[in-house]
Amino acid sequence: MAGPPRLALADVRAAEGRLRGRVHRTPLLTSGGLDRLAGRRLLFKCELFQRTGSFKIRGALNAVRNLVEESQCAGGGLPRAVVTHSSGNHGQALACAAQGEGIPAYVVVPRTAPRCKQAAIRTYGAMLVPCEPSDQSRAETAARIVQETGGVMVHPNQDLAVMAGQGTIALEVLEQALRPDVKVFAAEPRNADDCYQSKVRGELTPNLHPPDTIADAVKTSIGPNTWPIIRDLVDEVLTVSEEEIKRATQLVWERMKLLIEPTAGVGVAAVLSEQFQAVPRDVENVCIVLCGGNVDLSSLTWLTDLPGKAE
Amino acid sequence: MAGPPRLALADVRAAEGRLRGRVHRTPLLTSGGLDRLAGRRLLFKCELFQRTGSFKIRGALNAVRNLVEESQCAGGGLPRAVVTHSSGNHGQALACAAQGEGIPAYVVVPRTAPRCKQAAIRTYGAMLVPCEPSDQSRAETAARIVQETGGVMVHPNQDLAVMAGQGTIALEVLEQALRPDVKVFAAEPRNADDCYQSKVRGELTPNLHPPDTIADAVKTSIGPNTWPIIRDLVDEVLTVSEEEIKRATQLVWERMKLLIEPTAGVGVAAVLSEQFQAVPRDVENVCIVLCGGNVDLSSLTWLTDLPGKAE
Repeated sequence: MAGPPRLALADVRAAEGRLRGRVHRTPLLTSGGLDRLAGRRLLFKCELFQRTGSFKIRGALNAVRNLVEESQCAGGGLPRAVVTHSSGNHGQALACAAQGEGIPAYVVVPRTAPRCKQAAIRTYGAMLVPCEPSDQSRAETAARIVQETGGVMVHPNQDLAVMAGQGTIALEVLEQALRPDVKVFAAEPRNADDCYQSKVRGELTPNLHPPDTIADAVKTSIGPNTWPIIRDLVDEVLTVSEEEIKRATQLVWERMKLLIEPTAGVGVAAVLSEQFQAVPRDVENVCIVLCGGNVDLSSLTWLTDLPGKAE
Repeated sequence: MAGPPRLALADVRAAEGRLRGRVHRTPLLTSGGLDRLAGRRLLFKCELFQRTGSFKIRGALNAVRNLVEESQCAGGGLPRAVVTHSSGNHGQALACAAQGEGIPAYVVVPRTAPRCKQAAIRTYGAMLVPCEPSDQSRAETAARIVQETGGVMVHPNQDLAVMAGQGTIALEVLEQALRPDVKVFAAEPRNADDCYQSKVRGELTPNLHPPDTIADAVKTSIGPNTWPIIRDLVDEVLTVSEEEIKRATQLVWERMKLLIEPTAGVGVAAVLSEQFQAVPRDVENVCIVLCGGNVDLSSLTWLTDLPGKAE
């Protein structure tokens, strides 16, 4: 039986070429204060400074450029439309990429997605289609829109071109700072730990229910195309509590003055966790991808509600 | 009659040498989105990434190093203490600089100063002395502490060594981006417009009352040592409303993901103002110093209170 389609390093290299000059080469920042807290040298890959405010433009743009090149080779016109479902960042990214090529974009958005992200999707000229906050409702609504519009589905995380585009972050970081023999840690909210559960069981184990976490960008489960990569290439999955995510996010705001979104705080929380203290000390340099900065500024009440704040 | 002591370019160059390796060379960031809004190329000097979260460490460290070098030359011991008054950023900076040299620091802080800044001053090991929020109470309290401790006063903005240290920002920006024949615009809240009033009248005109502005770091008036520099070297003073400051601050947060403090939004607001539109178009490149990022995260209610927010 054939497995799912596999992503090759060549796809990521091809994406790198396709994205050259179209996305920002984001800086790798450091913080002496956070190094002291973590007890290691931390390198922060600032994808919050990326176009559209998150790394997702890499994948979306690679996918859209791919579609355009394919239709040019086939001598046909542009795709009629592109369609996706997204809690926000991929939606913004696809809307932006499609707008750049003059292709209509339809983005299926869970009603609970941050309003700032919904507003940004509209700003890039995309049609916004609301759905319920479940993997099933997302998929069904997107399938309906594909049928109605004759558009092409660009899945937020299972599309191979999207995956290849996101992979270019790793190539950039390797060039900027690291040796190629890195260990790869995944980090995820304990309330949305499908990746962790999948690794423990050795098989794809999606979240049973729509997860409740402040890290809105990782509410969807991993899928059949990403699971083999995680299974084979991720050394360890670390899970963190909601409070750890909030504290880490606040720490990056206060100490680094970087307005990351809480999902970007997940990786920081993992590196600052007790669990990470057990990682051997020869892991000296740790790169954390600050995946995005699309914070809903109108919903910052969680900050003032944090107990035991420093005076 | 002799005028006030004057700062020479040589003092700023000396400060540059003294600070080398002791402060960060902060990046100059750009934003396509904000360029479009302003209709010019903007260069953001990111002093919010500076040590202690604002540019004030430049002046404080230059002053403290100066004192240490002088006492070494005189064969004496370290100064008994350093004393200042500050709404926060200079206080943090002086506390940090003094801690690095093992000198006790006393910081007189208006009761209304942001609590995060007060907490940070304590973190750097300084003694915090509360006063009333007026220029007079600050000065009187600081004078009393100088007498009680035998310490040296390091005034937040009239001390020549402090002024020289802050001037190093300009040398850095000239190296990083600009031609030396720049125009210099000052920006200030309309509610604390002593600089504007002084220029209009041609004489030092302090604020009559403690000003009410969200830009907490520019509540003190300019003084006799800074006034001649402003009079002779600043081409124009732009004033902006509280709402303009808040909107500009929010814009930098949302678009640039930089957690600037509202005082840093003053310059951004000025460049985006109608008044600035009248500046000739041959002023193509505009550098804005994002002076600090010490935001009181527990007091963000002003954000949600802004009328007419984008959805």
